[in-house]
Order: sequence, then structure tokens, then C-alpha cells
Amino acid sequence: MPTTANPVLAEIWRGDFLESQHRGSAVVATAAGEVVEAWGEPGRVILPRSACKIMQALPLVESGAADAEGLGAEQLALACASHQGAALHTGLARRWLARLGLTDADLRCGGHVPNDPEAAHDLYHRHAAPDQVHNNCSGKHCGFLTVTRHIGAGPEYVDPDHPVQRMVRQIFEELTGGPVAGFAIDGCSAPNFAVPLRGLATAMARFATPETSFSGSRARAARRLFDAVIAHPMLVAGEGRACTDLIRACRGRAAVKTGAEAVFTAILPERGLGIAIKIDDGNARGSQAAVAALLARYGALERDDPVYRALADAPIRNCRGIVHGHLRAAATLTGAQAA
Amino acid sequence: MPTTANPVLAEIWRGDFLESQHRGSAVVATAAGEVVEAWGEPGRVILPRSACKIMQALPLVESGAADAEGLGAEQLALACASHQGAALHTGLARRWLARLGLTDADLRCGGHVPNDPEAAHDLYHRHAAPDQVHNNCSGKHCGFLTVTRHIGAGPEYVDPDHPVQRMVRQIFEELTGGPVAGFAIDGCSAPNFAVPLRGLATAMARFATPETSFSGSRARAARRLFDAVIAHPMLVAGEGRACTDLIRACRGRAAVKTGAEAVFTAILPERGLGIAIKIDDGNARGSQAAVAALLARYGALERDDPVYRALADAPIRNCRGIVHGHLRAAATLTGAQAA
Repeated sequence: MPTTANPVLAEIWRGDFLESQHRGSAVVATAAGEVVEAWGEPGRVILPRSACKIMQALPLVESGAADAEGLGAEQLALACASHQGAALHTGLARRWLARLGLTDADLRCGGHVPNDPEAAHDLYHRHAAPDQVHNNCSGKHCGFLTVTRHIGAGPEYVDPDHPVQRMVRQIFEELTGGPVAGFAIDGCSAPNFAVPLRGLATAMARFATPETSFSGSRARAARRLFDAVIAHPMLVAGEGRACTDLIRACRGRAAVKTGAEAVFTAILPERGLGIAIKIDDGNARGSQAAVAALLARYGALERDDPVYRALADAPIRNCRGIVHGHLRAAATLTGAQAA
Repeated sequence: MPTTANPVLAEIWRGDFLESQHRGSAVVATAAGEVVEAWGEPGRVILPRSACKIMQALPLVESGAADAEGLGAEQLALACASHQGAALHTGLARRWLARLGLTDADLRCGGHVPNDPEAAHDLYHRHAAPDQVHNNCSGKHCGFLTVTRHIGAGPEYVDPDHPVQRMVRQIFEELTGGPVAGFAIDGCSAPNFAVPLRGLATAMARFATPETSFSGSRARAARRLFDAVIAHPMLVAGEGRACTDLIRACRGRAAVKTGAEAVFTAILPERGLGIAIKIDDGNARGSQAAVAALLARYGALERDDPVYRALADAPIRNCRGIVHGHLRAAATLTGAQAA
């Protein structure tokens, strides 16, 4: 009983066999909301998860809160991050909280064992539970707390009716070009607003063209956030992570952000375009291959770059180093552009 | 550009949104090769990966090698295992090698960091590389070495032309009811023979009915392997792992085995049936939900069992313990049987 489905965007081969495949949707859009290219369902409503963090960070700068607290590019990059809880990240988050006169207990993200191996093993060795700063979203939450303090709002900043979340919701509606389709609660307890994939790509295109897409204070805020992400790729994710590697490899031609369940967004200032991807099955292996392929397709990444190869055209080696398989982005993404 | 695809077998909901889904194929078959029920493509050729380990272990018992070396149910369970490299597993593998007069260096599986947290952290703490016994397949390889010694074959037992692998290939062809469609090299360097999903389900049904499906020595070997798996679920995988939990929860009504890239097999002796599942995208979250649903559908697992709930009907909690989503097997698997 076959059913219709989105196209295959990435494939896993083992020997001569197509072993697994990742279906999904992808949209490349302009700041005016025009779809330049699309695969699958550009109108599909998705939860962008962490791939929208730069939108959630916009009130931090636009409201003047970041300047009032003297925040620099490091904190802004961390506000846009899904970091892996290395000392680099947790130290910055702790100092940020201290600057606000707050502590780990003021966060509402909860803790989880960090992805950074050294930090994880340190906690295991000490039989210690992770702090909330270890949460990959703690920078975003420090940003929410900074806005909360700046506008004098109450401490439960992840409540969907909290003024900070209302600001985020309004930004979503203005940048994606339509009302949000509701929200769900994210892994870090913040509301995550549901939007069409096309709207998410449009919002990213607006970050790619802040001076023409936005008025003065928002234009400056969007530019500052983009510049902070580009300047501090290690703060946005961490060693060996796709976002960090891609931002470095694109050398200013793109900012990218992953989200849970295989969402990926990209901001391409040279082309004035935004990209949004959602792999149906939620596996980051697929969204990483797709975003690398689209970055190459739109001139932000070279196909002979080791980062491209690792994510979109990679031999798979086994425990003895034998190449037995291959991960590759689908030909529909890597082939010549129709337009 | 929608394309036709296999049906959705598992869904991930977040709030009111269907966030991700897993498509795939599943077959329930009799020992005669009759398809009782099927979803997707029963004829699809797949690499069964570790879900076929009980077939790869059959020569160990059938050849008399296991008896010649005095192996018991523990070693046979480990030969059928994808274990997580806890001391329980590596200790048994090391003693088995010593009994053969061999060492870790005689294995050809390569090493990988074990999934067992204590073993992994111990290696990290000692800055030590994993041994080959840590490989989740080391029990299978000890089995291969035991047969190799018994028949006086050479040491390169993972070579596809090695007598042991020829024995495995012949078993695949006899049990699945047709020629293999080739092979690929598995993560542990052993050849992994490609077969139609229906053939894999048929082979499992034959393990469910050894006395009527096989002649004397093979019948006894198949029964011994099934009994060993049922008797030692911790050796087959490990603490908190789906195979271990499902074998325990089925209380003798089924043996199950997972394979990489989201393959799952089940042997149901009470019904005389075999099950084989392949999720297209390779995510075990999908194959675990599907196998639990089919075990319940065929009376081997109760739907109110905590193991069923955890794998096929599970709330998803975030870092603060808030339920924000739900994993569930598709209604097409959990609904009433058509037959």
C-alpha cells in the first residue's frame, strides 16, 4: 500500500544496496516571500525547533536589552546557539547570569547531560547532575532573562503569555509573513511557534537582507545577530558539530542553524536568500546532507570542501576503517539548477 | 513532487503537530513462506544487519563446534547478541577466547566505544582505546572463530569466501527460500547477505517451528539458540535496551533482534510465525515501535506492559519532565487484524 510522500533528499548506500533514505521538504525563498526553488511541500507547517533561534534572539537586541547589559558578540552568538555544554559555553552562560545578578536557578530550560565529551565525563565522574547552563539552549534562555529584566517582566519567561514570548510570536508573524499556526513546547520548555516551511525560509531571507527588509532598529539588530553567529561559530554549537563546521567553511557567505527532528535553516546574504529544510523522519543525517547540498547549489560552500564531503558526500567506514558505504545528498539537490 | 512510498509505521507528535514519521515495510510470514500480513514492500531486498545473528550463529551449533568446545547457553546467547560492551559481555567474550586458546587480536570485528556507560567512561578515564571484545558483535565473532577452529579453516574468517561465511550463506539461502541477492560488508567487517524482507520473516518463522521446519541436527541447533536467547536477555543486548526489555516482557512467547539502520526480526513459537521489519530511514525509534506493535498484535506482548508503552505508545518528556509529545506506532499496526 504505497502512499504519496515527499521526495528523497539523502541516501545511505552500503555496498551496492540503497540501505536507507531520508525524505523531506526544502524551500529556498527571497525576502519578499517568493519561492526560488522547492522540494516536497513548501506550505507544510513545521515546528522549527532550534533552527529559529536567531528569531527568538531578535528581541534581545531590538529592545535595547543587549546594549543596556553591555552584551557583546559572544553573548549574542550564544543566544542563537544549540551549544554542546563545553566549558567554553557554560562559562559564558554563568558569567552572563552573574552579570544579570541571577543564578542557574533562574533558568527555566532544565538540565541535560551535555554533548561535550569532557563535560559529560566530568559530571559522570563526580556523580553530579547537569546544571541548567549545560542545556544546549541556555544561551537562548539567558537572552530571554535579559529581555525580561530590561522590560521588568515576571520570572516565568517561558510561559507562552509572558511578554517576552509575545514579542517572539509577533516577530514570527512579521518575519514569516503570516499568523503562526499555534505552538508546541520545546525540549527547553519555551514555546516553539509553528510556521510554514516557506515562511521560515522567507524569515531567513530577511535576515540575509536586513537593511532592505527591516526598519532601523530591527535592521541593525538582525545584522548584529548574523555577524555574531559568523564571528563565533564555536559558540553556536561546538567542536565537530555541523553548524560550527558549516559556518566556518562558508566563510561569511552563510549562517546556518540546525533544529531537533531534522530542521535546518540557512541565511545567504550574498544571494539575499533564505533556506529552510525539514526531513520527515527527524534524522539530522538527512538535514545536514540537504543543507550542505543547498549551500553548495547556491554558491556558499565548495563541493570539494571537506565539510561538504563529510556531510553530503561521505564514505562510511566501519570499525576496522573499511569503507563499506556512502552517505550522499540526493541528485535532485546536487544536480544542475532548473532555474 | 510527491513520490510513492511505503506506509507510515510510527509517528512522533509534539503538542498538536505531527512532527516526524517513520515509513517502512513489515512482513509476518509462516515457515512455509506464506505472507500472513504485510505492510509496504514484502519483496524488498534488505541488508538484515544484526537482525540475522541467530542465522549467523546456526553453524556454531549445527556443526558440532559448540559442543566440541563445551559452550553453554550463555555463549550461544552472546553469539546472537548486539551487546553493549558491559563487563558482563566483555568478560564472557574474553573467557570464551581464552577457552579457544585465542586472544582479542584474533577477532576481526574491530573495536568501538561500548554503549554501556560504565565501560565507556572507564575507557575515557584511562585514555584507553576499546578492545575488539567491546564491539557489540564480538560474541558473533567468537562464534565464527569457534567454527573456524572446529573445521580447521584459516584465520581470516570474515572473508566472504571463508568456509564459515560460505556456511552462513548456504543457511541464508535454505532458510529464506531463495538465493541471496549479494552481500555488503557490515560494521563488524563480516559479510551481510541481502535477502527479501519476506524471506527474512520466513527464516524467523522456521526458527519458531524448528521441529517441523528442519531435520534433526538443525532442528536441535535452532531450538537451542532460541532457548539461549530467551534464557539470557541481558546477554543479547543489555540494561535498558529494546531487545532485552522485549524478550523479558514477552516471557518466552517471542525472541526479537534489532539490526542497524532500523531492521527488526521476531520469532513467535506459539504462533509459528516470523516477523521482519525495515524502516526506510534507518531510525531504530521507528523499528522498535513497529516490532512492539506487531508483537502485541500477535499476542506475544500486552499493550499495557510498560515495555510496550515505552516503545510504541510513549509520552515524550522534556528537560523539566514536562510531557510535550508522544511516540506511537501507526494505527495500521495497532488496529484490528484484517485477517
